Amino acid sequence: MPPQSTLDIQAARARTSFDPQVLHRVLLSGHKDPDVRKRVAQLLADDPAFDKRSRPYLSRAQQIERGLSTTKALFDLVDRHDLDHGEYLEALVSAMDEPIGLNLHEIAFAPVLASQGSDEQQAEWLPKCYHHEILGAYLQTELGHGSNVQQLETTATYDSKTDEFVLHSPTISATKWWIGALGVLATHGVVQARLFIKGKDHGPHLFILQLRSLEDHSLMPGIEAGEIGPKVHSAMGSVDNGWARFNSVRIPRSQMLSRFASVDPKDGGTYITPPHSKLSYGGMIFIRAQMISNLSWREAKAATISLRYLHMRRQFADPELNPGEERVEKQVISYPGVYMRVVPELANCIVFMLAGKDMANLYHSMASRLSTGDTSLLASTHAVSSGLKVYVSTRVVAGIEVFRRSMGGHGMLASSGVGRVFATELPAQTYEGENGVLSLQVARAALKSLAAAVAAKGGSNHSKAKLATSPFDAYLSALDPRPALPVQAPSTPEGWTDRAFLTRLLALRAALSVVRLADQMRSAGKKFGDLSWECADVSDAVVEAFLAKRTGEMLDALEGAGDKERDVMQRVVTLFLLSTLTNALAPLLELSILAPSAAADLRAAQAAAARALLPDLVGLTDSFGFSDWELDTAVGNADGAVYERMLEKAKADEELNLGSKQEQERLYRTYIRPVLERGRKRAGRTGAKL
Amino acid sequence: MPPQSTLDIQAARARTSFDPQVLHRVLLSGHKDPDVRKRVAQLLADDPAFDKRSRPYLSRAQQIERGLSTTKALFDLVDRHDLDHGEYLEALVSAMDEPIGLNLHEIAFAPVLASQGSDEQQAEWLPKCYHHEILGAYLQTELGHGSNVQQLETTATYDSKTDEFVLHSPTISATKWWIGALGVLATHGVVQARLFIKGKDHGPHLFILQLRSLEDHSLMPGIEAGEIGPKVHSAMGSVDNGWARFNSVRIPRSQMLSRFASVDPKDGGTYITPPHSKLSYGGMIFIRAQMISNLSWREAKAATISLRYLHMRRQFADPELNPGEERVEKQVISYPGVYMRVVPELANCIVFMLAGKDMANLYHSMASRLSTGDTSLLASTHAVSSGLKVYVSTRVVAGIEVFRRSMGGHGMLASSGVGRVFATELPAQTYEGENGVLSLQVARAALKSLAAAVAAKGGSNHSKAKLATSPFDAYLSALDPRPALPVQAPSTPEGWTDRAFLTRLLALRAALSVVRLADQMRSAGKKFGDLSWECADVSDAVVEAFLAKRTGEMLDALEGAGDKERDVMQRVVTLFLLSTLTNALAPLLELSILAPSAAADLRAAQAAAARALLPDLVGLTDSFGFSDWELDTAVGNADGAVYERMLEKAKADEELNLGSKQEQERLYRTYIRPVLERGRKRAGRTGAKL
Ligand SMILES: Cc1cc2nc3c(=O)[nH]c(=O)nc-3n(C[C@H](O)[C@H](O)[C@H](O)COP(=O)(O)OP(=O)(O)OC[C@H]3O[C@@H](n4cnc5c(N)ncnc54)[C@H](O)[C@@H]3O)c2cc1C
Ligand SMILES: Cc1cc2nc3c(=O)[nH]c(=O)nc-3n(C[C@H](O)[C@H](O)[C@H](O)COP(=O)(O)OP(=O)(O)OC[C@H]3O[C@@H](n4cnc5c(N)ncnc54)[C@H](O)[C@@H]3O)c2cc1C
Repeated sequence: MPPQSTLDIQAARARTSFDPQVLHRVLLSGHKDPDVRKRVAQLLADDPAFDKRSRPYLSRAQQIERGLSTTKALFDLVDRHDLDHGEYLEALVSAMDEPIGLNLHEIAFAPVLASQGSDEQQAEWLPKCYHHEILGAYLQTELGHGSNVQQLETTATYDSKTDEFVLHSPTISATKWWIGALGVLATHGVVQARLFIKGKDHGPHLFILQLRSLEDHSLMPGIEAGEIGPKVHSAMGSVDNGWARFNSVRIPRSQMLSRFASVDPKDGGTYITPPHSKLSYGGMIFIRAQMISNLSWREAKAATISLRYLHMRRQFADPELNPGEERVEKQVISYPGVYMRVVPELANCIVFMLAGKDMANLYHSMASRLSTGDTSLLASTHAVSSGLKVYVSTRVVAGIEVFRRSMGGHGMLASSGVGRVFATELPAQTYEGENGVLSLQVARAALKSLAAAVAAKGGSNHSKAKLATSPFDAYLSALDPRPALPVQAPSTPEGWTDRAFLTRLLALRAALSVVRLADQMRSAGKKFGDLSWECADVSDAVVEAFLAKRTGEMLDALEGAGDKERDVMQRVVTLFLLSTLTNALAPLLELSILAPSAAADLRAAQAAAARALLPDLVGLTDSFGFSDWELDTAVGNADGAVYERMLEKAKADEELNLGSKQEQERLYRTYIRPVLERGRKRAGRTGAKL
Repeated sequence: MPPQSTLDIQAARARTSFDPQVLHRVLLSGHKDPDVRKRVAQLLADDPAFDKRSRPYLSRAQQIERGLSTTKALFDLVDRHDLDHGEYLEALVSAMDEPIGLNLHEIAFAPVLASQGSDEQQAEWLPKCYHHEILGAYLQTELGHGSNVQQLETTATYDSKTDEFVLHSPTISATKWWIGALGVLATHGVVQARLFIKGKDHGPHLFILQLRSLEDHSLMPGIEAGEIGPKVHSAMGSVDNGWARFNSVRIPRSQMLSRFASVDPKDGGTYITPPHSKLSYGGMIFIRAQMISNLSWREAKAATISLRYLHMRRQFADPELNPGEERVEKQVISYPGVYMRVVPELANCIVFMLAGKDMANLYHSMASRLSTGDTSLLASTHAVSSGLKVYVSTRVVAGIEVFRRSMGGHGMLASSGVGRVFATELPAQTYEGENGVLSLQVARAALKSLAAAVAAKGGSNHSKAKLATSPFDAYLSALDPRPALPVQAPSTPEGWTDRAFLTRLLALRAALSVVRLADQMRSAGKKFGDLSWECADVSDAVVEAFLAKRTGEMLDALEGAGDKERDVMQRVVTLFLLSTLTNALAPLLELSILAPSAAADLRAAQAAAARALLPDLVGLTDSFGFSDWELDTAVGNADGAVYERMLEKAKADEELNLGSKQEQERLYRTYIRPVLERGRKRAGRTGAKL
């Protein structure tokens, strides 16, 4: 007979109300090709070079080596199976499940060349990139400056005599720092440096720089560089983040990326101003847009492991059993104290998947307008992508930790596999715009939208502000006309599942939060800079209103879904809305959007929505479609058998974990035996007595 | 001239309104001796065996070796400097700053023997423990059961023929798992096993078992054991958590710990029921009581590093400068978006230090009564210690992460030192009672207190319930007489710093939350088990009311404080209360304790309280008294010089991080060169061309 945990997972699967295979394709459609995904993951799984077993046991130096060995193995795989560029990227960025230095080449170096290089520069450099004749890094951040790019200290001084730029690090804090792939791998980099022409400072610009010799990989003259050391929680241990200092390093004028700004050699150097300075924002938006999907699919791994385990874990018999009921222990997923923690996170995760696709569509609309010189969607797309990046990265990281912690003791084991996901995604809150800083921009954009709406109305009366047009400002229409507050709360449980109503509550909350922020600047006379604490809240409120609004579009866009898949997705979205509202209870009550008496009904509705998903939890994890190799877990495999696997693995990995038997014997002789001998002596006894 | 970061930290220090040396002694008084603490930390710092530099670079096997090598080095240090037991424990548990297997001997094995062993057992075993003739582990948790101790599966069957117990692991899930020091170090263990006498199951009891030979450390016959593998985030890498299985292992009857229950050999084995079954709770309470202080002092390390760094980090000039003002960038601690995140966490941390001492006092009162057979304080002390354990561990872990994240990019570096603190404290939420499970007990105790208060009143009218007597129930008196709600909110900012008023709000919130829980069981007819989600909230509410109430006692007990130290501590407590209320805004509004219009004033008061601490932040970190060696950080040292140190460290640690130059050269030849050569070939070029 299979172990209880296998029976439990099978029973859960049998209850599923929809077809996970169908939903799998629905969730991926518009994001990636499910067949490519599966094939590529299988190729990696079959290749011993990508074996994951050793990962948690490695020293930093071994992690670095793993980053390099998988780099080479990946190209071998590409050649052996003749993978195309898309398949190669799927393997590198997604299937491998461990970032390595090479990622920076593809997600930072090459895209910057492609978006900021002139046509000639692209013609020269992109083929080298594409063939990996060179390997690149993106050198922006310095020891002293990350968020404030405008104050970077590295200089690029134009020398008209030689028609060159001189790159230099004038201070310690000008040292480039954090740069992925710079520590060991990269041969080239794009460097942000402050452009000086004839003594005048034109601010940061981008320059292509060869970092290491293509003959022997030694650092080029005038460049000093190294690795910055391990990250917290051993996160991204196989990425060689590096530092670099420049001692008057000369590069030809042609190596300033000049799609937008450039330097004309005439008159000892003349700065050519970019025609549309904001055109260069596109790349940043693209990266952030992609982060939404990626983060949601990473969280989905944590969700899969945790939710399966919580079905297999049994702890405590029901203390309030009726006579005759069997005293078998309950599955911990059945406790409200457990499911009310994890099921809302699952709903978030799935909505973020849909939002990622939605964001990609918004990006493409903007990009196609941009290509015709139309910048009308730029500002709002920038705001949406920034707001979503802040919101989703924060919640995904928190959600992964909820999943981990819900598992009790076994969640603390590296072999459970959730800790690694957490550590890898943790810095998403910090890179591509530190969340605290980025939320300021979202709030500022919201203030602008409000001002525009008011202006369009031709008066300062918010309540009748003209409807905003961008999807990111749509919540403002909740104030037009200004409704009586508190709103009439539903009197039946069904009323609390009316998604339009729930969306309206979130719109009101966002609109009133922005109005309050504007008031604080106007009437309370505060500077925007004094309101950075309030901005974080406003940013969240605006994003929540946006997400709520878009869930309608998202549900409509479920390509390939049957009725049953639609039904479960509707339940997911309803729970998302109710959980979001429950978390926003304080502002909803403070802003008198809801009366205090509605709070209990809201919470009851959220709990009912969570319960409505209970029968489908394992089915939903199946619909994410991760193979056991992808999950790399001892506790969340598709077929259960948790305890058997955990014990098995501890035994099988003994030497990886502790060293060989001989080594273990050495440890005993060197450290333990002397301590015990000392103990015996202190006790005044002879060894023979024991 | 010293670097800017040094000037910044000096300027912050110069602003301090009190004497950090004095406050240091105030904070430690009643907790530990500051001179012993300092001396012991210095001994470790001076001993190369405890050098911390290699830590983040080690493989798991090396971490295990470090655990053992520091074990031996610690005893060498004890012998060399003739440390007494208290100094030895200070070194092991606190100064070393990295848990090792040996901790379990002192905090689990020996205390259990001391509290559960009969006088004869103590006489036999405690000297061996004390001299470290044997090294112990505590084997309770199994693969299948952690929280539910009553369902442990390991059996201890009494064999009357030989007057022995037979220890056995009947299933895979009965495998002992998670057991600290069992993996490699321990020679002995105390094992929880289900006692069977003549076929009757008497539930879990404790047995002393020799695990490994004292001659050669080989496992004793019938025992199979090993290490369970690394923990997430490389947490506690030097602790050898282990597993074990027993195949009919025989031990003499004298090895059942029998202070309370025991087996009499007559009639083929007769179970002797413990006289006061709850007397055995004392040990658990003691451990949880100690966790409060320990957790707060660990968080204090994270606070020190982060707050210092946030004074040294400058990012962005004020965009709204008046003409003539200098465009030097601002210290990030000056942004509300930063200080409103970290200063409340600092206030929590300091209040938890005081609460730890308070808890220790409560424990000692209970223990002294217990020694005379008086169990009257047992239940409430158990509830307080459980509630505080849940509350403080959750907030400390979250707080450490707030401190880390506040630092932006550099907070992600292992060398910043905050990540390690997070990883080490993370499992405190799980061990010594999983927080979700423990909060059920706190809520259940609160329901009992309410019922008792109602019963004492002789009626079911809550509003006139008799005042409760234990400090943990004092909040119930807020309902006697039941006040008109919402309460009258203060009309001035000063009113919002009245600690008695703030405490009353938290008492009302707790009392009404408990009443609501009771109502849900009574009128809504829910079982307690259906309310585990609500229980978490109730547990928090009750603890917050308790902490608020006790801050009065805590401030009175500031031994050795002058007026200035008292003043800053009052500001700390005020911020703690206001932040706690701000976080509880949703229930305060929902329960109509506050009117919506009061919310803005509450938030303003919290912000003002945080600002009132700004000048003293660095002084407060100094008052924690950590040396640079203790902090082990590149970014939070006492003297600033952040960037210089970071760069310096990256250079100095290069070989630890990447391996020798030769190794690095090998990596290039083996992995990077082939990839670049492939790239050149693919591009159809010869190497010579580049
Ligand atoms: C894993 C990782 C990989 C990276 N890879 C690269 C790379 O390949 N290339 C590269 O160039 N960079 C890289 N970076 C650097 C990254 O982009 C920066 O760390 C990031 O931009 C954050 O900037 P910072 O560290 O300066 O944060 P800071 O701005 O110093 O933030 C410190 C604190 O101040 C707050 N703060 C700052 N300004 C304000 C304000 N005006 N108002 C309110 N609060 C404020 C922030 O919210 C934060 O709490 C990487 C970083 C990490 C962690
Ligand atoms: C680092 C570390 C060191 C340890 N060292 C030791 C040691 O030396 N010796 C030893 O014996 N043990 C040790 N342990 C084990 C530890 O005591 C257990 O892991 C802990 O008791 C948690 O139990 P669990 O894993 O069974 O959690 P579970 O009870 O399985 O919890 C799983 C989930 O179910 C929830 N849950 C369970 N029951 C209920 C309920 N009735 N209602 C609502 N929710 C519920 C929990 O909240 C949790 O979310 C250690 C653990 C760790 C992580």
